[in-house]
Amino acid sequence: MPTSRTTAEPNTGGRRSPNWENRRQAIIDTSARVFARGGYHGTGIAELCEANELGKGALYHYIGSKEELLAGIHDRVMDEVLQSSERVTHASGTPTERLTRLGDELLDIIARYPDHVWVFLHEFPALTGERAEVFHGRRRTYEQTVESILAEGIAAGEFRNVDPRLTSLAWLGMHNYTYLWLKPDGNLSAHEVASRFADLFIRGIAS
Amino acid sequence: MPTSRTTAEPNTGGRRSPNWENRRQAIIDTSARVFARGGYHGTGIAELCEANELGKGALYHYIGSKEELLAGIHDRVMDEVLQSSERVTHASGTPTERLTRLGDELLDIIARYPDHVWVFLHEFPALTGERAEVFHGRRRTYEQTVESILAEGIAAGEFRNVDPRLTSLAWLGMHNYTYLWLKPDGNLSAHEVASRFADLFIRGIAS
Repeated sequence: MPTSRTTAEPNTGGRRSPNWENRRQAIIDTSARVFARGGYHGTGIAELCEANELGKGALYHYIGSKEELLAGIHDRVMDEVLQSSERVTHASGTPTERLTRLGDELLDIIARYPDHVWVFLHEFPALTGERAEVFHGRRRTYEQTVESILAEGIAAGEFRNVDPRLTSLAWLGMHNYTYLWLKPDGNLSAHEVASRFADLFIRGIAS
Repeated sequence: MPTSRTTAEPNTGGRRSPNWENRRQAIIDTSARVFARGGYHGTGIAELCEANELGKGALYHYIGSKEELLAGIHDRVMDEVLQSSERVTHASGTPTERLTRLGDELLDIIARYPDHVWVFLHEFPALTGERAEVFHGRRRTYEQTVESILAEGIAAGEFRNVDPRLTSLAWLGMHNYTYLWLKPDGNLSAHEVASRFADLFIRGIAS
Protein backbone atom coordinates (compact mmCIF):
# COMPACT_ATOMS: atom_id res chain seq x y z
CA MET A 1 0.00 0.00 0.00
CA PRO A 2 1.73 3.16 -1.16
CA THR A 3 0.29 5.41 1.51
CA SER A 4 0.19 3.14 4.51
CA ARG A 5 3.58 3.85 6.06
CA THR A 6 3.34 7.51 6.94
CA THR A 7 -0.38 7.82 7.37
CA ALA A 8 -1.03 9.30 10.77
CA GLU A 9 -4.48 10.84 10.47
CA PRO A 10 -7.68 8.87 10.81
CA ASN A 11 -9.33 10.49 7.80
CA THR A 12 -6.75 9.00 5.43
CA GLY A 13 -5.75 5.95 7.38
CA GLY A 14 -8.37 3.44 6.30
CA ARG A 15 -8.62 1.44 3.13
CA ARG A 16 -10.25 3.43 0.39
CA SER A 17 -11.60 2.54 -3.01
CA PRO A 18 -9.17 2.10 -5.91
CA ASN A 19 -10.64 5.28 -7.42
CA TRP A 20 -9.87 7.21 -4.26
CA GLU A 21 -6.31 5.84 -4.21
CA ASN A 22 -5.78 6.70 -7.87
CA ARG A 23 -7.07 10.21 -7.40
CA ARG A 24 -4.87 10.62 -4.34
CA GLN A 25 -1.79 9.46 -6.28
CA ALA A 26 -2.58 11.93 -9.07
CA ILE A 27 -2.84 14.73 -6.48
CA ILE A 28 0.49 13.66 -4.98
CA ASP A 29 2.15 13.78 -8.40
CA THR A 30 0.70 17.18 -9.30
CA SER A 31 1.59 18.61 -5.90
CA ALA A 32 5.18 17.29 -6.18
CA ARG A 33 5.54 19.50 -9.27
CA VAL A 34 4.11 22.50 -7.40
CA PHE A 35 6.37 22.00 -4.34
CA ALA A 36 9.42 21.46 -6.58
CA ARG A 37 8.86 24.93 -8.09
CA GLY A 38 7.77 26.96 -5.07
CA GLY A 39 9.08 25.03 -2.09
CA TYR A 40 7.01 23.26 0.56
CA HIS A 41 6.89 26.18 3.00
CA GLY A 42 6.30 28.65 0.19
CA THR A 43 3.27 26.83 -1.24
CA GLY A 44 -0.14 27.46 0.25
CA ILE A 45 -3.23 25.27 0.21
CA ALA A 46 -4.86 27.70 -2.26
CA GLU A 47 -2.14 27.00 -4.82
CA LEU A 48 -2.48 23.25 -4.29
CA CYS A 49 -6.26 23.53 -4.80
CA GLU A 50 -5.75 25.45 -8.03
CA ALA A 51 -3.12 23.07 -9.42
CA ASN A 52 -5.30 20.07 -8.58
CA GLU A 53 -8.53 21.77 -9.68
CA LEU A 54 -10.17 20.95 -6.38
CA GLY A 55 -11.87 22.92 -3.64
CA LYS A 56 -10.33 23.00 -0.19
CA GLY A 57 -12.68 20.41 1.30
CA ALA A 58 -12.16 17.99 -1.57
CA LEU A 59 -8.38 18.42 -1.41
CA TYR A 60 -8.31 17.67 2.33
CA HIS A 61 -10.51 14.63 1.72
CA TYR A 62 -7.67 13.15 -0.32
CA ILE A 63 -4.56 14.45 1.42
CA GLY A 64 -5.56 14.82 5.08
CA SER A 65 -3.08 17.67 5.65
CA LYS A 66 -0.28 19.46 3.84
CA GLU A 67 2.32 17.50 5.79
CA GLU A 68 0.52 14.25 5.01
CA LEU A 69 0.76 15.22 1.35
CA LEU A 70 4.51 15.79 1.74
CA ALA A 71 4.80 12.37 3.36
CA GLY A 72 2.88 10.93 0.40
CA ILE A 73 5.44 12.44 -2.00
CA HIS A 74 8.25 10.89 0.03
CA ASP A 75 6.50 7.52 0.03
CA ARG A 76 5.98 7.62 -3.71
CA VAL A 77 9.78 7.56 -4.12
CA MET A 78 10.66 5.55 -1.02
CA ASP A 79 8.20 2.75 -1.84
CA GLU A 80 10.01 2.10 -5.11
CA VAL A 81 13.45 2.62 -3.60
CA LEU A 82 12.74 0.05 -0.88
CA GLN A 83 11.15 -2.42 -3.29
CA SER A 84 14.38 -2.20 -5.27
CA SER A 85 16.42 -2.73 -2.14
CA GLU A 86 14.32 -5.82 -1.27
CA ARG A 87 14.77 -7.25 -4.76
CA VAL A 88 18.51 -6.73 -4.72
CA THR A 89 18.92 -8.07 -1.19
CA HIS A 90 17.23 -11.32 -2.16
CA ALA A 91 18.76 -11.59 -5.62
CA SER A 92 21.54 -13.99 -6.43
CA GLY A 93 24.81 -12.67 -7.79
CA THR A 94 28.10 -11.35 -6.49
CA PRO A 95 28.31 -8.14 -4.42
CA THR A 96 29.64 -6.41 -7.56
CA GLU A 97 26.62 -7.52 -9.57
CA ARG A 98 24.18 -6.57 -6.83
CA LEU A 99 25.68 -3.12 -6.25
CA THR A 100 25.54 -2.54 -10.00
CA ARG A 101 21.89 -3.54 -10.08
CA LEU A 102 21.02 -1.36 -7.08
CA GLY A 103 22.57 1.69 -8.78
CA ASP A 104 20.80 0.92 -12.02
CA GLU A 105 17.41 0.74 -10.31
CA LEU A 106 18.07 3.87 -8.25
CA LEU A 107 18.91 6.01 -11.29
CA ASP A 108 15.85 4.63 -13.06
CA ILE A 109 13.67 5.85 -10.17
CA ILE A 110 15.40 9.26 -10.03
CA ALA A 111 14.92 9.74 -13.78
CA ARG A 112 11.23 8.83 -13.57
CA TYR A 113 10.40 11.06 -10.57
CA PRO A 114 12.40 14.29 -10.98
CA ASP A 115 9.91 16.46 -9.07
CA HIS A 116 9.32 13.94 -6.28
CA VAL A 117 13.04 13.44 -5.79
CA TRP A 118 13.64 17.20 -5.74
CA VAL A 119 11.00 17.55 -3.01
CA PHE A 120 12.20 14.39 -1.27
CA LEU A 121 15.82 15.57 -1.03
CA HIS A 122 15.01 19.17 -0.12
CA GLU A 123 11.96 19.11 2.10
CA PHE A 124 12.46 16.10 4.36
CA PRO A 125 13.21 18.35 7.38
CA ALA A 126 9.58 19.56 7.18
CA LEU A 127 8.32 16.13 8.24
CA THR A 128 7.65 16.02 11.96
CA GLY A 129 6.98 13.49 14.71
CA GLU A 130 6.09 9.99 13.60
CA ARG A 131 6.32 10.88 9.93
CA ALA A 132 9.91 12.06 10.34
CA GLU A 133 10.78 8.90 12.25
CA VAL A 134 9.24 6.65 9.62
CA PHE A 135 11.04 8.52 6.88
CA HIS A 136 14.42 8.34 8.61
CA GLY A 137 13.88 4.64 9.30
CA ARG A 138 13.11 3.89 5.67
CA ARG A 139 16.07 5.94 4.49
CA ARG A 140 18.33 4.14 6.96
CA THR A 141 17.06 0.78 5.68
CA TYR A 142 18.19 1.68 2.19
CA GLU A 143 21.57 2.92 3.36
CA GLN A 144 22.03 -0.34 5.24
CA THR A 145 21.38 -2.29 2.06
CA VAL A 146 24.30 -0.50 0.42
CA GLU A 147 26.49 -1.01 3.49
CA SER A 148 25.63 -4.73 3.63
CA ILE A 149 26.57 -5.31 0.01
CA LEU A 150 29.85 -3.52 0.61
CA ALA A 151 30.53 -5.55 3.76
CA GLU A 152 29.77 -8.81 1.92
CA GLY A 153 32.10 -7.81 -0.87
CA ILE A 154 34.85 -7.10 1.63
CA ALA A 155 34.25 -10.41 3.42
CA ALA A 156 34.35 -12.22 0.08
CA GLY A 157 37.63 -10.54 -0.84
CA GLU A 158 35.98 -8.89 -3.83
CA PHE A 159 36.31 -5.37 -2.38
CA ARG A 160 39.25 -4.02 -0.45
CA ASN A 161 38.95 -3.11 3.19
CA VAL A 162 37.05 0.19 2.86
CA ASP A 163 34.78 1.69 5.54
CA PRO A 164 31.29 0.47 4.50
CA ARG A 165 29.53 3.48 6.03
CA LEU A 166 31.68 6.17 4.44
CA THR A 167 31.81 4.28 1.16
CA SER A 168 28.02 3.93 1.10
CA LEU A 169 27.75 7.72 1.59
CA ALA A 170 30.09 8.23 -1.37
CA TRP A 171 27.98 5.84 -3.46
CA LEU A 172 24.72 7.51 -2.42
CA GLY A 173 26.09 11.00 -3.15
CA MET A 174 27.27 10.02 -6.59
CA HIS A 175 23.89 8.47 -7.44
CA ASN A 176 21.43 10.76 -5.64
CA TYR A 177 22.99 13.94 -6.95
CA THR A 178 22.02 12.94 -10.51
CA TYR A 179 18.56 14.39 -9.73
CA LEU A 180 20.03 17.76 -10.77
CA TRP A 181 20.95 16.75 -14.30
CA LEU A 182 19.61 13.30 -15.22
CA LYS A 183 16.78 13.82 -17.70
CA PRO A 184 14.66 11.15 -19.38
CA ASP A 185 15.52 12.78 -22.72
CA GLY A 186 19.18 13.49 -21.95
CA ASN A 187 22.24 12.39 -23.93
CA LEU A 188 22.72 9.33 -21.78
CA SER A 189 19.96 7.13 -20.44
CA ALA A 190 19.72 6.43 -16.72
CA HIS A 191 20.88 2.91 -17.49
CA GLU A 192 24.00 4.12 -19.33
CA VAL A 193 24.89 6.56 -16.57
CA ALA A 194 24.41 3.84 -13.94
CA SER A 195 26.61 1.46 -15.88
CA ARG A 196 29.48 3.99 -16.10
CA PHE A 197 29.09 4.93 -12.45
CA ALA A 198 29.22 1.26 -11.45
CA ASP A 199 32.37 0.79 -13.51
CA LEU A 200 34.05 3.77 -11.84
CA PHE A 201 32.89 2.96 -8.33
CA ILE A 202 33.64 -0.74 -8.39
CA ARG A 203 37.13 -0.21 -9.76
CA GLY A 204 37.58 2.28 -6.92
CA ILE A 205 36.81 -0.31 -4.27
CA ALA A 206 38.05 -3.48 -5.99
CA SER A 207 40.63 -5.45 -4.05
CA MET B 1 35.06 41.79 -3.47
CA PRO B 2 32.64 39.21 -2.13
CA THR B 3 29.49 40.97 -3.24
CA SER B 4 30.54 42.44 -6.57
CA ARG B 5 29.53 39.66 -8.95
CA THR B 6 25.81 39.48 -8.48
CA THR B 7 25.06 43.01 -7.42
CA ALA B 8 22.40 44.37 -9.70
CA GLU B 9 20.83 47.18 -7.71
CA PRO B 10 22.28 50.67 -7.45
CA ASN B 11 21.77 50.92 -3.70
CA THR B 12 24.18 48.06 -3.04
CA GLY B 13 26.37 48.35 -6.09
CA GLY B 14 28.93 50.91 -4.99
CA ARG B 15 31.90 50.52 -2.69
CA ARG B 16 30.90 50.79 0.93
CA SER B 17 32.82 51.18 4.13
CA PRO B 18 34.44 48.12 5.71
CA ASN B 19 31.89 48.40 8.53
CA TRP B 20 29.04 48.28 6.06
CA GLU B 21 30.58 45.25 4.31
CA ASN B 22 31.11 43.45 7.63
CA ARG B 23 27.58 44.12 8.74
CA ARG B 24 26.28 42.94 5.39
CA GLN B 25 28.28 39.70 5.64
CA ALA B 26 26.91 39.09 9.14
CA ILE B 27 23.37 39.58 7.81
CA ILE B 28 24.09 37.16 4.96
CA ASP B 29 25.32 34.53 7.43
CA THR B 30 22.36 34.93 9.79
CA SER B 31 19.90 34.87 6.89
CA ALA B 32 21.49 31.72 5.46
CA ARG B 33 20.57 30.00 8.73
CA VAL B 34 16.99 31.32 8.50
CA PHE B 35 16.56 30.26 4.85
CA ALA B 36 18.08 26.84 5.56
CA ARG B 37 15.35 26.21 8.17
CA GLY B 38 12.28 27.75 6.53
CA GLY B 39 13.14 27.84 2.81
CA TYR B 40 13.68 30.94 0.69
CA HIS B 41 10.10 31.23 -0.52
CA GLY B 42 8.74 30.42 2.92
CA THR B 43 10.71 33.16 4.70
CA GLY B 44 9.33 36.68 4.79
CA ILE B 45 11.14 39.97 5.26
CA ALA B 46 9.63 40.25 8.76
CA GLU B 47 11.41 37.05 9.85
CA LEU B 48 14.67 38.27 8.36
CA CYS B 49 14.30 41.56 10.24
CA GLU B 50 13.70 39.71 13.48
CA ALA B 51 16.61 37.31 13.05
CA ASN B 52 18.95 40.17 12.18
CA GLU B 53 17.50 42.52 14.82
CA LEU B 54 16.98 45.23 12.23
CA GLY B 55 14.04 47.29 11.02
CA LYS B 56 12.86 46.87 7.44
CA GLY B 57 14.55 50.04 6.19
CA ALA B 58 17.88 49.14 7.79
CA LEU B 59 17.71 45.59 6.44
CA TYR B 60 17.10 46.83 2.88
CA HIS B 61 19.96 49.29 3.28
CA TYR B 62 22.29 46.30 3.61
CA ILE B 63 20.70 43.70 1.37
CA GLY B 64 18.97 45.67 -1.40
CA SER B 65 16.31 43.01 -1.88
CA LYS B 66 15.49 39.49 -0.74
CA GLU B 67 16.82 38.05 -4.00
CA GLU B 68 20.00 40.12 -3.67
CA LEU B 69 20.41 38.56 -0.22
CA LEU B 70 20.03 35.08 -1.73
CA ALA B 71 22.67 35.99 -4.32
CA GLY B 72 24.91 37.14 -1.46
CA ILE B 73 24.56 33.72 0.21
CA HIS B 74 25.49 32.03 -3.06
CA ASP B 75 28.49 34.32 -3.48
CA ARG B 76 29.71 33.63 0.04
CA VAL B 77 30.18 29.98 -0.97
CA MET B 78 31.04 30.50 -4.64
CA ASP B 79 33.74 33.08 -3.91
CA GLU B 80 35.65 30.51 -1.87
CA VAL B 81 34.89 27.67 -4.26
CA LEU B 82 36.25 29.68 -7.21
CA GLN B 83 39.28 30.89 -5.27
CA SER B 84 40.04 27.24 -4.60
CA SER B 85 39.57 26.40 -8.25
CA GLU B 86 41.98 29.23 -9.24
CA ARG B 87 44.60 28.02 -6.76
CA VAL B 88 44.38 24.43 -7.95
CA THR B 89 44.39 25.40 -11.63
CA HIS B 90 47.64 27.31 -11.19
CA ALA B 91 49.24 24.87 -8.76
CA SER B 92 51.98 22.51 -9.78
CA GLY B 93 51.49 18.78 -9.32
CA THR B 94 50.05 15.86 -11.23
CA PRO B 95 46.35 15.68 -12.14
CA THR B 96 45.96 13.14 -9.31
CA GLU B 97 47.48 15.54 -6.81
CA ARG B 98 45.43 18.48 -8.05
CA LEU B 99 42.13 16.58 -8.05
CA THR B 100 42.89 15.45 -4.51
CA ARG B 101 43.57 19.03 -3.44
CA LEU B 102 40.42 20.33 -5.12
CA GLY B 103 38.31 17.78 -3.24
CA ASP B 104 40.03 18.57 0.02
CA GLU B 105 39.33 22.29 -0.33
CA LEU B 106 35.73 21.69 -1.43
CA LEU B 107 34.89 19.56 1.61
CA ASP B 108 36.56 22.13 3.84
CA ILE B 109 34.22 24.83 2.44
CA ILE B 110 31.14 22.59 2.75
CA ALA B 111 31.99 21.78 6.38
CA ARG B 112 32.48 25.46 7.24
CA TYR B 113 29.28 26.72 5.57
CA PRO B 114 26.57 24.11 6.20
CA ASP B 115 23.67 26.59 6.06
CA HIS B 116 24.97 28.51 3.05
CA VAL B 117 25.57 25.28 1.14
CA TRP B 118 22.11 24.01 2.04
CA VAL B 119 20.59 27.24 0.68
CA PHE B 120 23.00 27.26 -2.27
CA LEU B 121 22.09 23.74 -3.40
CA HIS B 122 18.35 24.07 -2.80
CA GLU B 123 17.38 27.60 -3.69
CA PHE B 124 19.42 28.43 -6.80
CA PRO B 125 16.30 28.21 -9.03
CA ALA B 126 14.97 31.29 -7.20
CA LEU B 127 17.70 33.48 -8.72
CA THR B 128 16.42 35.28 -11.81
CA GLY B 129 17.75 37.23 -14.78
CA GLU B 130 21.34 38.42 -14.55
CA ARG B 131 21.84 36.87 -11.11
CA ALA B 132 20.85 33.44 -12.41
CA GLU B 133 23.20 33.84 -15.38
CA VAL B 134 26.12 34.90 -13.19
CA PHE B 135 25.48 31.99 -10.83
CA HIS B 136 25.28 29.43 -13.64
CA GLY B 137 28.44 30.86 -15.19
CA ARG B 138 30.38 30.58 -11.94
CA ARG B 139 29.11 27.08 -11.31
CA ARG B 140 30.08 26.08 -14.86
CA THR B 141 33.57 27.52 -14.31
CA TYR B 142 34.07 25.22 -11.36
CA GLU B 143 32.75 22.20 -13.23
CA GLN B 144 35.16 22.98 -16.05
CA THR B 145 38.06 22.98 -13.61
CA VAL B 146 37.19 19.41 -12.63
CA GLU B 147 36.75 18.42 -16.28
CA SER B 148 40.09 19.99 -17.23
CA ILE B 149 42.01 18.12 -14.56
CA LEU B 150 40.37 14.88 -15.71
CA ALA B 151 41.19 15.62 -19.36
CA GLU B 152 44.81 16.41 -18.46
CA GLY B 153 45.07 13.18 -16.51
CA ILE B 154 43.72 11.24 -19.48
CA ALA B 155 46.13 13.00 -21.86
CA ALA B 156 49.02 12.23 -19.51
CA GLY B 157 48.04 8.56 -19.35
CA GLU B 158 47.44 8.87 -15.62
CA PHE B 159 43.67 8.32 -15.93
CA ARG B 160 41.94 5.91 -18.27
CA ASN B 161 39.78 7.13 -21.10
CA VAL B 162 36.67 8.16 -19.11
CA ASP B 163 34.16 10.79 -20.21
CA PRO B 164 35.39 13.96 -18.43
CA ARG B 165 31.90 15.49 -18.24
CA LEU B 166 30.14 12.47 -16.76
CA THR B 167 33.07 11.71 -14.49
CA SER B 168 33.11 15.29 -13.20
CA LEU B 169 29.40 14.96 -12.37
CA ALA B 170 30.16 11.77 -10.43
CA TRP B 171 32.96 13.56 -8.57
CA LEU B 172 30.78 16.59 -7.81
CA GLY B 173 27.91 14.40 -6.59
CA MET B 174 30.13 12.44 -4.28
CA HIS B 175 31.62 15.63 -2.80
CA ASN B 176 28.66 18.04 -2.81
CA TYR B 177 26.28 15.56 -1.22
CA THR B 178 28.39 15.55 1.95
CA TYR B 179 26.50 18.73 2.94
CA LEU B 180 23.85 16.39 4.37
CA TRP B 181 26.11 14.64 6.84
CA LEU B 182 29.54 16.29 7.07
CA LYS B 183 29.73 18.05 10.42
CA PRO B 184 32.65 20.03 11.84
CA ASP B 185 32.37 17.90 15.00
CA GLY B 186 31.72 14.59 13.22
CA ASN B 187 33.68 11.34 13.55
CA LEU B 188 35.80 12.13 10.54
CA SER B 189 37.18 15.56 9.67
CA ALA B 190 36.48 17.06 6.25
CA HIS B 191 40.13 16.43 5.43
CA GLU B 192 39.91 12.73 6.32
CA VAL B 193 36.71 12.26 4.32
CA ALA B 194 38.28 14.05 1.34
CA SER B 195 41.36 11.87 1.53
CA ARG B 196 39.31 8.64 1.49
CA PHE B 197 37.10 9.94 -1.31
CA ALA B 198 40.18 10.84 -3.36
CA ASP B 199 41.59 7.36 -2.82
CA LEU B 200 38.35 5.74 -3.97
CA PHE B 201 37.76 8.05 -6.90
CA ILE B 202 41.28 8.06 -8.26
CA ARG B 203 41.55 4.28 -8.12
CA GLY B 204 38.27 4.25 -10.02
CA ILE B 205 39.65 6.28 -12.90
CA ALA B 206 43.32 5.23 -12.79
CA SER B 207 44.68 3.80 -16.03
